[in-house]
Amino acid sequence: MSTDRIRSSLLRDRVVSAEAAAAFIQPGETVAMSGFTGSGYPKAVPLALARRIEDAHVAGQAFRIRLMTGASTAPELDGALAKADGIALRMPFQTDPDARQRINAGTLDYIDIHLSHVAQHVWFGFYGDIDTAVVEVAGIREDGSLIPSTSIGNNKTWLDLAKKVIIEVNDWQPEGIDGMHDVYYGTALPPHRKPIPLLHADDRIGETSLRVDSDKVVAVVRTHGPDRNSPFAPVDDTSKRIAAHLIEFLQHEVKKGRLPANLLPLQSGVGNIPNAVLAGLSESGFRDMAAFTEVIQDGMLDMLRDGVLRVASCTGFALSPAANEEFKRNIDFYRERIIMRTQEISNHPELVRRLGCIAMNGMIEADLYGNVNSTHVMGSKIMNGIGGSGDFARNSFLSIFLSPSTAKNGSISALVPMVSHVDHTEHDVSIIVTEHGLADLRGLPPRHRARQILDRCVDPSYRAQLEDYFERASRASFGKHTPHLLPEALSWHQRWLDTGSMRA
Amino acid sequence: MSTDRIRSSLLRDRVVSAEAAAAFIQPGETVAMSGFTGSGYPKAVPLALARRIEDAHVAGQAFRIRLMTGASTAPELDGALAKADGIALRMPFQTDPDARQRINAGTLDYIDIHLSHVAQHVWFGFYGDIDTAVVEVAGIREDGSLIPSTSIGNNKTWLDLAKKVIIEVNDWQPEGIDGMHDVYYGTALPPHRKPIPLLHADDRIGETSLRVDSDKVVAVVRTHGPDRNSPFAPVDDTSKRIAAHLIEFLQHEVKKGRLPANLLPLQSGVGNIPNAVLAGLSESGFRDMAAFTEVIQDGMLDMLRDGVLRVASCTGFALSPAANEEFKRNIDFYRERIIMRTQEISNHPELVRRLGCIAMNGMIEADLYGNVNSTHVMGSKIMNGIGGSGDFARNSFLSIFLSPSTAKNGSISALVPMVSHVDHTEHDVSIIVTEHGLADLRGLPPRHRARQILDRCVDPSYRAQLEDYFERASRASFGKHTPHLLPEALSWHQRWLDTGSMRA
Repeated sequence: MSTDRIRSSLLRDRVVSAEAAAAFIQPGETVAMSGFTGSGYPKAVPLALARRIEDAHVAGQAFRIRLMTGASTAPELDGALAKADGIALRMPFQTDPDARQRINAGTLDYIDIHLSHVAQHVWFGFYGDIDTAVVEVAGIREDGSLIPSTSIGNNKTWLDLAKKVIIEVNDWQPEGIDGMHDVYYGTALPPHRKPIPLLHADDRIGETSLRVDSDKVVAVVRTHGPDRNSPFAPVDDTSKRIAAHLIEFLQHEVKKGRLPANLLPLQSGVGNIPNAVLAGLSESGFRDMAAFTEVIQDGMLDMLRDGVLRVASCTGFALSPAANEEFKRNIDFYRERIIMRTQEISNHPELVRRLGCIAMNGMIEADLYGNVNSTHVMGSKIMNGIGGSGDFARNSFLSIFLSPSTAKNGSISALVPMVSHVDHTEHDVSIIVTEHGLADLRGLPPRHRARQILDRCVDPSYRAQLEDYFERASRASFGKHTPHLLPEALSWHQRWLDTGSMRA
Repeated sequence: MSTDRIRSSLLRDRVVSAEAAAAFIQPGETVAMSGFTGSGYPKAVPLALARRIEDAHVAGQAFRIRLMTGASTAPELDGALAKADGIALRMPFQTDPDARQRINAGTLDYIDIHLSHVAQHVWFGFYGDIDTAVVEVAGIREDGSLIPSTSIGNNKTWLDLAKKVIIEVNDWQPEGIDGMHDVYYGTALPPHRKPIPLLHADDRIGETSLRVDSDKVVAVVRTHGPDRNSPFAPVDDTSKRIAAHLIEFLQHEVKKGRLPANLLPLQSGVGNIPNAVLAGLSESGFRDMAAFTEVIQDGMLDMLRDGVLRVASCTGFALSPAANEEFKRNIDFYRERIIMRTQEISNHPELVRRLGCIAMNGMIEADLYGNVNSTHVMGSKIMNGIGGSGDFARNSFLSIFLSPSTAKNGSISALVPMVSHVDHTEHDVSIIVTEHGLADLRGLPPRHRARQILDRCVDPSYRAQLEDYFERASRASFGKHTPHLLPEALSWHQRWLDTGSMRA
């Protein structure tokens, strides 16, 4: 049916089994793999590596690697390597249950960093050498350059820096993805950096393929496997109400002249609430919008198909099986409207600020003063990681955080006296939305921010308790700028640990 | 001796007394003034306004304004208006004891925001209209354009947006400052933003004067007064030891090839420790350096004079009386080596990241995991504000925080289990230095960061106590990724409030 995905005869000669490829990876290596939100990650070599590690462990040999990716991957990568106890250090983002369990047991070291910092920090030399890169691609051109797959992430940096390279060519990925990518080769180390010549989400500033030094390619592996499925639940009532509050606010801002009628480029975290917001935007008459975001999920595909969204810039996908089928079926349509970039570009502070993105991200909790915790449950147990939320929250036109007002059947309030961990400071949070309402924190000092959050966001079942804290703190706090009662500030979290509920 | 500083006849006709100028400002107005770290602030109109407000209060009339500036000013501005109870809301940074007292008593609202966000947030409309701008300049050209004074701050934005403008022409400021400034007029609102064409700290990309619509100028006031004095104490032993640790590290990074021999553009907070670092750099053989920073203080003038520093880009000054005399005396020399910019440019995330600054800032406290509190004493009482520290910490090549390991005669440890307020998250802090040593947190997961801070930074008198917390938290914490014992996490701060010491 289709032609061979490997059109370089030089690299076709390096095709081996996944097991043979995995044998190139030695204990203690730093291994940089492709993958972003479960798309475009290698499907076979990590599994073969996990088996190799298990065998080594059975034989009493130490075998762990330091593992870097773009962002989260899938059970065949993070899951298999974590289960094999093969990961000594993980960076920069993960969502795998097995890996998470080990991280929170203290047996797997995890570094949670801004996604826009990853490529440059590795290039700066802060993480030592990259021994091996393992990168999934959709094909190899005659000249040896690589047609990226369903995510780019840090692949440019991994291919540039790794001492040896293993390529997986996955013919499950649509051939028509060729041309969708825009790989920018203009980044540099300071003092040699130049402005990034991107002015609109639509702009193409790079190449459609990844360069690789063929001499470094030690193995090429053929694979045929799907990306991770990300089924979405039907939009629930809470998500709909959150979306409605946000959309009403955006409409108001357009009326006031503070936003153009087609808004500004949308950034959206992944999940059911963002999907509800995207669906709501489509139904509310917004048109000719653009997205400058990390991940395209179902809602954005719908908006592109409906013509509501003109263009979407991303670095990866998180699609349900149905949406993935639609994407592959109409790949020619989407290739004209989707631009996939490296994550140093998709999340670049220079570009997020220039474009003036509308940043919409989830959170674990926020406090009275608008500090946001995106990562740590009860201050110590990591959920996923900060991902790109900080890149967008800090530099966007509007920094919006969305969450149901409670979690775990109401035993946890998402609005607390003091967050148990801070990822986004009061300086970087402008809007907080729950199903009860929207707190507009722009231009407000701390106690007025608290008033907004108390009046608009907190669940009624926690309102009196939070009011009580705020009132007593406003009277008795050491300083009255940001009133707090330190012995009580984290008591809601401790109460949940002790009793299973934050309720007094 | 010198010619009239007001060379526009149109604006010369608008010269009035400070009292007459202050009469243009009405109760409830939003007033945007010049001034950055005690340089280039208006000297006469704020005092006249304070008297007007006091008279109104005596007469039983309400009179308060919303006050914005570049950053901190001086007793004649923040002090006088705060004492008169004339400030309802203050933004974005202050260091005045009277204003601070009222902020922490809860009677003066204060908004603490990133200095790079101020101009754009006001332009976005987040703070409503600017009624009056009061801007100090060094002179007025024939065409009505303004020769900036010893700070630029947000003056471009204030002049662009204010409905009416009051200009103070201060002939105490050196005439020779004309030509030192670089006012960039290329910023825009999204979606119309373009790359900022600055590639090196040395680049000039703008104009030497500020534009103003003469029709908006309601008053011009002649003044003759010095900027705030900022005497520096002689470099003490603690500062010298902090500086020595940092310089040894920078030399090591150069040897490792991770930094060029002339380093990367320096950003430095204001104070005795940064001054010691600058002095130490000069004595350590570094040459041909550049600074891309907010404020030039004594140490940088010395480095420019000695040829150690090639160029310094800033938006304001904080000079001792002696250094100011030197600056004025040799203004022709400094004009060739200093470039003053608007603060949206001096602190712009696009530029801080592009240039790869080495960011060196003070702090109040850091915790085991490298979260930094720059603003709040015991979590509630604000000291000054975040200023530009976040702009640089987030986007720099190296994000360095410097502090003595203890404060208040040893009763406070600057290294604590959990900071009582977060301004810079673990994601944005790469190096912490005290007189005891330097913790290199780059590429380390949380528990390894704690190890560095325990081994290198904490004062010996607090080490056992902090080790004890970390060990028990590592065993008993809910999650072991970032171990914490919530009932104890802020107990050091509460102990200080209760007993006057953090010691157990």
